[in-house]
Amino acid sequence: MTEFLNLLSVEEVRSRLLDGVRPLRAAERLATPMALGRVTSAEVLALEAMPSFARSEVDGYAVRARDTHGASAALPAYLRLIGEVPMGRPASIAVAPGQAAGIHTGGQIPEGSDAVIMLEDTQISREGEIEILKPVSFGENVLRVGEDVQPGQVLLPSGQQLRPQDVGGLMGAGVLTVEVVRRPRVAIVATGDEIISPERKPTVGQVRDINSYILEAIVKEAGAESVGYGIVPDDYQELKSVCQRALLECDGLVISAGSSVSARDMTAGVVAEISRPGIIAHGVALKPGKPTLVALHEGKPILGLPGNPVSATVVARLLLIPAVMRQLGRRGLPRRPGLRLRVTHNLDSQTGREDFIPCRLVQREGEEWADPVFGKSNLIFTLVRADGLLVVPGDANGVAQGEWVEFLPFDV
Amino acid sequence: MTEFLNLLSVEEVRSRLLDGVRPLRAAERLATPMALGRVTSAEVLALEAMPSFARSEVDGYAVRARDTHGASAALPAYLRLIGEVPMGRPASIAVAPGQAAGIHTGGQIPEGSDAVIMLEDTQISREGEIEILKPVSFGENVLRVGEDVQPGQVLLPSGQQLRPQDVGGLMGAGVLTVEVVRRPRVAIVATGDEIISPERKPTVGQVRDINSYILEAIVKEAGAESVGYGIVPDDYQELKSVCQRALLECDGLVISAGSSVSARDMTAGVVAEISRPGIIAHGVALKPGKPTLVALHEGKPILGLPGNPVSATVVARLLLIPAVMRQLGRRGLPRRPGLRLRVTHNLDSQTGREDFIPCRLVQREGEEWADPVFGKSNLIFTLVRADGLLVVPGDANGVAQGEWVEFLPFDV
Repeated sequence: MTEFLNLLSVEEVRSRLLDGVRPLRAAERLATPMALGRVTSAEVLALEAMPSFARSEVDGYAVRARDTHGASAALPAYLRLIGEVPMGRPASIAVAPGQAAGIHTGGQIPEGSDAVIMLEDTQISREGEIEILKPVSFGENVLRVGEDVQPGQVLLPSGQQLRPQDVGGLMGAGVLTVEVVRRPRVAIVATGDEIISPERKPTVGQVRDINSYILEAIVKEAGAESVGYGIVPDDYQELKSVCQRALLECDGLVISAGSSVSARDMTAGVVAEISRPGIIAHGVALKPGKPTLVALHEGKPILGLPGNPVSATVVARLLLIPAVMRQLGRRGLPRRPGLRLRVTHNLDSQTGREDFIPCRLVQREGEEWADPVFGKSNLIFTLVRADGLLVVPGDANGVAQGEWVEFLPFDV
Repeated sequence: MTEFLNLLSVEEVRSRLLDGVRPLRAAERLATPMALGRVTSAEVLALEAMPSFARSEVDGYAVRARDTHGASAALPAYLRLIGEVPMGRPASIAVAPGQAAGIHTGGQIPEGSDAVIMLEDTQISREGEIEILKPVSFGENVLRVGEDVQPGQVLLPSGQQLRPQDVGGLMGAGVLTVEVVRRPRVAIVATGDEIISPERKPTVGQVRDINSYILEAIVKEAGAESVGYGIVPDDYQELKSVCQRALLECDGLVISAGSSVSARDMTAGVVAEISRPGIIAHGVALKPGKPTLVALHEGKPILGLPGNPVSATVVARLLLIPAVMRQLGRRGLPRRPGLRLRVTHNLDSQTGREDFIPCRLVQREGEEWADPVFGKSNLIFTLVRADGLLVVPGDANGVAQGEWVEFLPFDV
């Protein structure tokens, strides 16, 4: 079987697509807590040092380190207790040689002291005096000014998708608003004379639209906005006019082609006519998803996805999400490895083609294994019953039961 | 060092917490596309068969399988072409012995036919006749009625968090609305005399609130709603009254304790007084996060998190997210394995304690390795610079450079 030999690999198609996709330039400024999951459009710089004052990392006593040298449980050093550093206010106390001041985690290191000895390394000998049972070195248990962040330092690079700790870190640094890339608008067009809106009851020959909803959800998860252009019948002029409008109004276009070859050919014809530089791949060496169409129009990605919802889901994950990430300017985009799991069954595959097989996670020998979901690979509920996709690489002609495989989990 | 020997392990604490957390019963009905990421509160059953009519899986010709038996390229079978099945409408054609009808993927299998031969296994011999170059068996390339879903079958189990394919599958099955569990409301209380709102400029001794924002974001990501109760000074009665009100109004409570031992003790005192059955763990064998407080009040989780934002993040991921998942009734909650990666440095650890070490992903020898982020483990920007947490298990006393370790990525 040589049918896949002339097709480009997923990797090659993705790389050509990403080379041509233009990052969006428009940005918007949001209150930092609202920017969770959004992508920074520029470096965020620190305005102040963090911490802004030297503070204790432990509960104990602020001391001069040299007063503790040589101290041990057998031969403690004795220091005079001169008070306690309050929380939330300046220390307003100074530690002279032979003295110590009580301090809590986060309290300001008082003038004169240069280290903190932990509570458990001391004991109270008598009123106003402590025994030091262990030496501390200069700076020990002290967080210096700017040790976390120096003024002017880059807090977040450009292209960083904000995670909880990033939001918290910016708020802690007093950065109350942040500039993020506008969400790309991705147009979704469904085609096919047999496709009807799910509100309608299908008559014989008709099926309800599935792909628009899957694609809308994937687009949202990728951090973009989906814009629905409805279901277009198999009419060349109508499909062309809807797609042209979508490309004007949006930053990308996904066409869920009808299931027949003629519907797919019509999609390819329309895309070829309306896009510049145009089609970069027609057919990809993967299963499911071989009839995928990939094009570019003025830096905007265009995908023509097979009508089969399993193919559409797989291809959207492999190509659409990376294209959206590129538009958002997300840096790095590392090829994140999937999980390494063992597979419960032998699986055949063709060399030269990457296979993505819906699997459940099951427990075997105290570990999780990938268990292929039985059922034809073009049925949506095969995918609903799966926890992720097992990958059979292009250079393999299958995997053997018990073999370690890459598994891409469907995480919401 | 035996300080961790009397503490419960993360696994033990999580198991006690999850045993006590009561799933929410209240549900709400949403339009299916709006339910992405929400959790079903009941089984969703199929109302109709999918597909609702027998249809072709390929482009080709609908035939009677027995008419193709013995056919080969050398000795083709000849069938009379009687027309083509339209897309989106009934076949309105019947295939008699010796006949074939053109059909597209998704077209209805016409009466009399029982298989579809692919276009590439045929050729046109002359007007109105095709040559069959290969036999097909009964039912080949035919999707039977109900092959994806039978009426009454469970489309989605209760406790399923809706992914893109679940939304698409339900819409395809004509299930336009779905009942999902109400989002749990998680109260967030910050304490500590030293903590100020980020809008304010800290004076010496003060730090801006970080943890409330991290926790709010983690709670949202977990599928819950966060309800902020502001910053409470270190005053027992005030903290008690705020926490009591929060427990009345919400489904769970997270207290970000001040950084000092006395603030943490106050939190523990308040929680002990207001919760029934009360505290289930005070201290957990992990780093960072040892001083964590875990309690239950009438089936609602209560967490007292250390003031250090790195600890708070780690503990929220290990305990708060699973507690929210339990409230949402998410089934399974498998202990999803992390990635298996190698580590770039030797790392020390204490036996009896699980360590979570912020790491970046770096490329080494063509693979991704976990590279520990330098910097004190209590600094928020250590976490900002990390891509995830490396896990040193409780029974290890460290990991060696090049060793394979578990790595939990920070995926947004």
